[in-house]
Amino acid sequence: MARDVRIALDAMGGDHGPSVVLSAAGIALERRPDIEFLIYGDEKQTGPIMSADRRLAARSKLFHTSVAVQMTDKPSQALRTGRRVSSMWQAIEAVKSGAADCAVSAGNTGALMAMSKYHLGVLDGIDRPAIAALWPTKRGQSVVLDVGANVECDAQQLVDFAIMGEAFARAVLGLERPTVGILNIGAEDVKGNDAVKSAAHMLRNVKLPIEFCGFVEGDDIAEGTVDVIVTDGFTGNVALKTAEGTAKLVAHFLRSALKRSFFGTLGAILASGALGTLKRKLDPRSANGGIFLGLNGVVVKSHGGTDALGFASALDMAIGMADAQVIPKIVADRAIALPPPVQTAGAVAS
Amino acid sequence: MARDVRIALDAMGGDHGPSVVLSAAGIALERRPDIEFLIYGDEKQTGPIMSADRRLAARSKLFHTSVAVQMTDKPSQALRTGRRVSSMWQAIEAVKSGAADCAVSAGNTGALMAMSKYHLGVLDGIDRPAIAALWPTKRGQSVVLDVGANVECDAQQLVDFAIMGEAFARAVLGLERPTVGILNIGAEDVKGNDAVKSAAHMLRNVKLPIEFCGFVEGDDIAEGTVDVIVTDGFTGNVALKTAEGTAKLVAHFLRSALKRSFFGTLGAILASGALGTLKRKLDPRSANGGIFLGLNGVVVKSHGGTDALGFASALDMAIGMADAQVIPKIVADRAIALPPPVQTAGAVAS
Repeated sequence: MARDVRIALDAMGGDHGPSVVLSAAGIALERRPDIEFLIYGDEKQTGPIMSADRRLAARSKLFHTSVAVQMTDKPSQALRTGRRVSSMWQAIEAVKSGAADCAVSAGNTGALMAMSKYHLGVLDGIDRPAIAALWPTKRGQSVVLDVGANVECDAQQLVDFAIMGEAFARAVLGLERPTVGILNIGAEDVKGNDAVKSAAHMLRNVKLPIEFCGFVEGDDIAEGTVDVIVTDGFTGNVALKTAEGTAKLVAHFLRSALKRSFFGTLGAILASGALGTLKRKLDPRSANGGIFLGLNGVVVKSHGGTDALGFASALDMAIGMADAQVIPKIVADRAIALPPPVQTAGAVAS
Repeated sequence: MARDVRIALDAMGGDHGPSVVLSAAGIALERRPDIEFLIYGDEKQTGPIMSADRRLAARSKLFHTSVAVQMTDKPSQALRTGRRVSSMWQAIEAVKSGAADCAVSAGNTGALMAMSKYHLGVLDGIDRPAIAALWPTKRGQSVVLDVGANVECDAQQLVDFAIMGEAFARAVLGLERPTVGILNIGAEDVKGNDAVKSAAHMLRNVKLPIEFCGFVEGDDIAEGTVDVIVTDGFTGNVALKTAEGTAKLVAHFLRSALKRSFFGTLGAILASGALGTLKRKLDPRSANGGIFLGLNGVVVKSHGGTDALGFASALDMAIGMADAQVIPKIVADRAIALPPPVQTAGAVAS
């Protein structure tokens, strides 16, 4: 990187606030010493933690904010009470003004999305932003979107998600020609609701550097059948949480199976290195971070209940997004996919 | 049981046809010698396999059918070519006529649902049937429905699913007062689409022997937070397949982690008993069977690609349904939940 990456941090977001956010910033600095932090939060709570880490203190600027958006606030409420004055708003404002390359918050998702949309605005031609998640698969990682921003989506929105997802996959995952699929309840053309059927029709005829593979099913996500999985925010959110729950259930079954016998326990001790590897692979902290795509700026949402390691993963994602210049790529691909209607002066004469 | 259970088998359904279906019947007879089978299929393919198992031959009647519904047939096509003459139709006909207590098929899901609806009809007051699945959880098993019959569902349909699911949970899982939740993307009342919000409102005010717990999220399914999870067929199908894919992914990670080191391999050998237990717990064959609820008769769908053990699980489910008299319970609960409008002769006078 030619230039240092500047990250705006909402220090008051999440269940644990500044202690987790600033420890995570310290971890991120170990990996990437070229980060600068703009930290927004209550001075009294944030200052002492920042000062205790000399490297962090040297690479950070602290800005006092007196209001913190609550996890229970409705988006409209957060906008009313937190506009301009909250740590969340200020972090977004830093992206808007160009002071920061990206903002990261573990705060209230709805409020963060509402403030980001309101303040940064949505990219030209994109109807509504989406939240993307990186999903571990047999082949590596896939991008799944939307995982929660839009409860109901029409075909055009699904096509937008495909464009945003493929631009992300090319920029951040480094894929030249990502494969894209629409999540459905069967691979056949006749399956599914109208939105997925017309989105598939539109994507088959679009000029983008993608390989559109049609419909994929729930088990194709973990299989890694395609690089980008497009779905509405309701289905995507349920799928994501169902997968998290299933991984936990299997780990629970494994633990109780191993504990039940002497040889199981002994085997587990011998295989502890391998089981540790599995644990790290399944650790939800390693893929923590919902990427807001479709905004005029990079905003990443960390899980509210995560610890410093988890928040540091969200920081990694934000850095990746900023490094890879995802947003200009989305704008360019949107223009290729759906050129704006041509203004013809003599339309009446035709 | 006072009376033998009579099962109608579509011997031609599924990827492997009679060889799997009849071997499964043999396995089921070992567990429950009180079963009688009515077998519908091609005599030449089915007869020799049946005769080779003396016990099965003694407990079965074979009925020759010349048409088999194909896995690729559309429901309308299957109804056109398979009505009256196919093994699938004949198995359903046996339930309709009272010759059998239930029908089991590994054939084309859409065709099986269409034929069942057409021939058996839908229960009074139920709008559309659903497919229910038994889902392994930390606490045991939960019922999830719909997992694929209805792509879009309104609030009334979701309420119907709750009624069918709780009746099933009381009858088959033996729960006195099952807990019921609606699958959503957040536990708060404001989350989700209109259908889930009004269904929740309706279920809060319904007089049923259930504990309605409001909204649950994807990770609550495996957690076992509630006994019955209500959702539309699109979301439920994606969730089910995502869970299957995730379980496979975790098993894949576990295998490769154990193989990578000497101690891992040694540990795995020592713990092979425990790992075998895990494998059985995760074996999709042990929970194979989609239960069609809302029909005037018991029909169970086995996964098309399953083997004899898997098909035998579907037979177990059918037997459980028949034993427990689920259908009268659904009818009774539907009447309690939503009594039919009272005919008042003097309405004008009021």
